[in-house]
Amino acid sequence: MSTRESFNPESYELDKSFRLTRFTELKGTGCKVPQDVLQKLLESLQENHFQEDEQFLGAVMPRLGIGMDTCVIPLRHGGLSLVQTTDYIYPIVDDPYMMGRIACANVLSDLYAMGVTECDNMLMLLGISNKMTDRERDKVMPLIIQGFKDAAEEAGTSVTGGQTVLNPWIVLGGVATTVCQPNEFIMPDNAVPGDVLVLTKPLGTQVAVAVHQWLDIPEKWNKIKLVVTQEDVELAYQEAMMNMARLNRTGTGAGGLVSGRGRPAGKHFRLCGPRSVSAALPLLPWHQFLKHVKNHSLGWKNRPGARSGRYCRPPSAGTWFGVLDHQSRSRVFLAEMHFKC
Amino acid sequence: MSTRESFNPESYELDKSFRLTRFTELKGTGCKVPQDVLQKLLESLQENHFQEDEQFLGAVMPRLGIGMDTCVIPLRHGGLSLVQTTDYIYPIVDDPYMMGRIACANVLSDLYAMGVTECDNMLMLLGISNKMTDRERDKVMPLIIQGFKDAAEEAGTSVTGGQTVLNPWIVLGGVATTVCQPNEFIMPDNAVPGDVLVLTKPLGTQVAVAVHQWLDIPEKWNKIKLVVTQEDVELAYQEAMMNMARLNRTGTGAGGLVSGRGRPAGKHFRLCGPRSVSAALPLLPWHQFLKHVKNHSLGWKNRPGARSGRYCRPPSAGTWFGVLDHQSRSRVFLAEMHFKC
Repeated sequence: MSTRESFNPESYELDKSFRLTRFTELKGTGCKVPQDVLQKLLESLQENHFQEDEQFLGAVMPRLGIGMDTCVIPLRHGGLSLVQTTDYIYPIVDDPYMMGRIACANVLSDLYAMGVTECDNMLMLLGISNKMTDRERDKVMPLIIQGFKDAAEEAGTSVTGGQTVLNPWIVLGGVATTVCQPNEFIMPDNAVPGDVLVLTKPLGTQVAVAVHQWLDIPEKWNKIKLVVTQEDVELAYQEAMMNMARLNRTGTGAGGLVSGRGRPAGKHFRLCGPRSVSAALPLLPWHQFLKHVKNHSLGWKNRPGARSGRYCRPPSAGTWFGVLDHQSRSRVFLAEMHFKC
Repeated sequence: MSTRESFNPESYELDKSFRLTRFTELKGTGCKVPQDVLQKLLESLQENHFQEDEQFLGAVMPRLGIGMDTCVIPLRHGGLSLVQTTDYIYPIVDDPYMMGRIACANVLSDLYAMGVTECDNMLMLLGISNKMTDRERDKVMPLIIQGFKDAAEEAGTSVTGGQTVLNPWIVLGGVATTVCQPNEFIMPDNAVPGDVLVLTKPLGTQVAVAVHQWLDIPEKWNKIKLVVTQEDVELAYQEAMMNMARLNRTGTGAGGLVSGRGRPAGKHFRLCGPRSVSAALPLLPWHQFLKHVKNHSLGWKNRPGARSGRYCRPPSAGTWFGVLDHQSRSRVFLAEMHFKC
């Protein structure tokens, strides 16, 4: 894992106390509307008059809609499908360039989870905080945009449009769209008991970024500084940031992927499959210091979204499960994802 | 123009003082980042490594990117293009259902401005205000969603995905995507001197909705109540709301459209064309009372975005110019748009 020099606001003629993460009050998945509330709100969208089955060469074309992160729409043009996703988040790290990369990787990961490796177009959604000074805006936003653009180009696509507005919090997101033939995507409904799950990014990134922010908050830092060093916190933060910014495109092309989707959302979770399939997630000690933080965290379990596996909170950006039908294939998959297996 | 009964919060078990427009501080185009600032921020996106010319049957396929509201991307699949737009705004009217319709019409209008009449897919972007009570959220958001959905269905398309997050302000927007053959869209670069311009929605809607909010603010209302009646204000508000919610799809199919795009952004504006084409916009007295308000408005000219034509501020949602090459065609176009000519 490569590292990156910490973002120094003063290098950009900003006050040394400048922190990107202060331009939001909800970080990472904290900005998500609770699943049960969301399901109820979106109920009316489930019924749809324009979703008749489309056929091509005698076969019904697959369709995926509300309730999933990515939609699949059969097109009017022979056998092609529109595969499309949108996502937006608030700042979770303080390095603007890396935050741009994370926002882009977060959008693209939803396409990759469908086995799609080519993105035809990206739109960028930006909210510029109306609490930023002109100088902060002019120094910081171009770095975010550059990070987003660089990640898109690394993914072989480009940003050709979007929308930018003023908002109290900084908003970072986009839309990823591809037009596919049937063999270019995998419907996320093939998981069966016995399949091997491969997590495409490590767990614990939200803890790592939260604890890093505690370095600036003496009353919080004082409670854990006896069990973790600043160096450990910086290292974990770096690792979390690099992982979130990494495109999990590599691996999706591995032949063995039978279903991309499956979100880690706690200790237990469900997968989409022809039968009801659930899985228990082992509590992985992603980084040594997380064990210590577990016992010293401040009010962690009372925060919205907190789960029983407290030092195993879901990662913030762009993680999905690869579902494979053979143990051996998981090694190929992991090798492609540049993990040590 | 049909009218609609005013939204009564008490019918939904909400406090009678509930106003959707209070969940934002910037309304309509006020949330837009000034054009010169935006151009500078997005500069880096202009250079692009993945935008080589694509050819089909010997002709270069058209491409449209950063700087326009809609992008046109040549696809890998023979001769097809991806035409795509995204937009999001904050509440400008207090009726949640109508606001949902306006948000949807606002997104779709950018496709219609390209002569595209079929939208293959819509995604919905929602920000639920974290300042709403659970009751407000559960009563109001489903109305917004229903309005958005109904407008999408009226346009012959459907909402199959999107993103919903918590935000200080209510966010309403979406993504509209279509996959087209070359004869299904019009590039907005054909305007020449002498062409006839047809505005697809009337000007003055922002003034009408702003003045309507003054009914709740005694110090503002007292300054204009001698020159306008409450009835006039209510009527203008109704007309503005219905116009913003109207899909300007009809008309785009009219044979004479040579270029859809052209934003009214003040008294003078520029059109996209092979040569530099600009136009002077006559100050249309859209509604009688606007003349009076002009002389009694409070600090209007000091507000961001205010222009010299003060009672002629740009409309908030989804207006574009149809550019036609013959006077006679404009009558057909207008007839299709259901205007009296």
